[in-house]
Amino acid sequence: MSFYDATVPAYLQILASLSGLLAKAEAHCEVKKIQPEVLLTARLYPDMLPFTKQIQLACDFAAKGCARLSGSTLPSTPDTETSFAELRQRLSKTIDYLKTFKPEQFEGADTRDVTFPTGPNSTATLKGQEFVNRVSFPNFYFHAAIAHGLLRHNGVEIGKRDFLGIA
Amino acid sequence: MSFYDATVPAYLQILASLSGLLAKAEAHCEVKKIQPEVLLTARLYPDMLPFTKQIQLACDFAAKGCARLSGSTLPSTPDTETSFAELRQRLSKTIDYLKTFKPEQFEGADTRDVTFPTGPNSTATLKGQEFVNRVSFPNFYFHAAIAHGLLRHNGVEIGKRDFLGIA
Repeated sequence: MSFYDATVPAYLQILASLSGLLAKAEAHCEVKKIQPEVLLTARLYPDMLPFTKQIQLACDFAAKGCARLSGSTLPSTPDTETSFAELRQRLSKTIDYLKTFKPEQFEGADTRDVTFPTGPNSTATLKGQEFVNRVSFPNFYFHAAIAHGLLRHNGVEIGKRDFLGIA
Repeated sequence: MSFYDATVPAYLQILASLSGLLAKAEAHCEVKKIQPEVLLTARLYPDMLPFTKQIQLACDFAAKGCARLSGSTLPSTPDTETSFAELRQRLSKTIDYLKTFKPEQFEGADTRDVTFPTGPNSTATLKGQEFVNRVSFPNFYFHAAIAHGLLRHNGVEIGKRDFLGIA
């Protein structure tokens, strides 16, 4: 298998499962007469990011990660979503974007330098595989899992199988 | 790079960062006069697993994942930890175990069949790379991130940099 096989399908698996989580969260709001904004703005702690931002960041770490690894232009993705439907559309667009990548674009990317921002005025450079191991995957899965935890914490009836995309 | 480079270092990165999180959680308990059990048994929702179990499962998905990929005997790891010190020891043992693997043991493992349990009486089989993408990584990062979210939710002063292991 290839470096493509070790990256793009892994992101796609979770992006699809997040879309399923959003559908269950939206249905939960309807049944329980909860304003969607309550879940969309939920935080695990006051200085943590809200649910909507967790989904946006998961999308960004997948899309920009693949762009950086393949040397493609970074996609521009303003964070404008204010509803479950719009967040699902963001996920859908991210999935479509990831599906445009071809395995050839990732050939040799595991040992190529990847430069990425570490703050407003700083960057770091790692080999592609290290960038995936230390930056892209941990951030991507972190925001996806925190989004899941936020829904669980608010009583949405989902389980780990939903996170894995096998429910 | 190799399939080893795409797996073992990724697990090790987060296992080390979890050890750091535990140290900060323990210090937080001391300063705030909180009984460690309060954090160790904390859950994000009544039917979710408590903090201790999230750490144990992160260890297991890393250790058993590497064992399955390399065709090694699965390590036996009874869940006996009841303190931060014991959980740090569990992480430390898991890290030591992962460091015993050699890149050669992972050669060709990406395309080898991996059979793993999916329930008390069921198994599934996937190619090694798919096992990593769909099962081992999502489960591993999920439990690690939920552990982090649990500490944040309980006021421990950590951030995503702690999760990434760069704090």
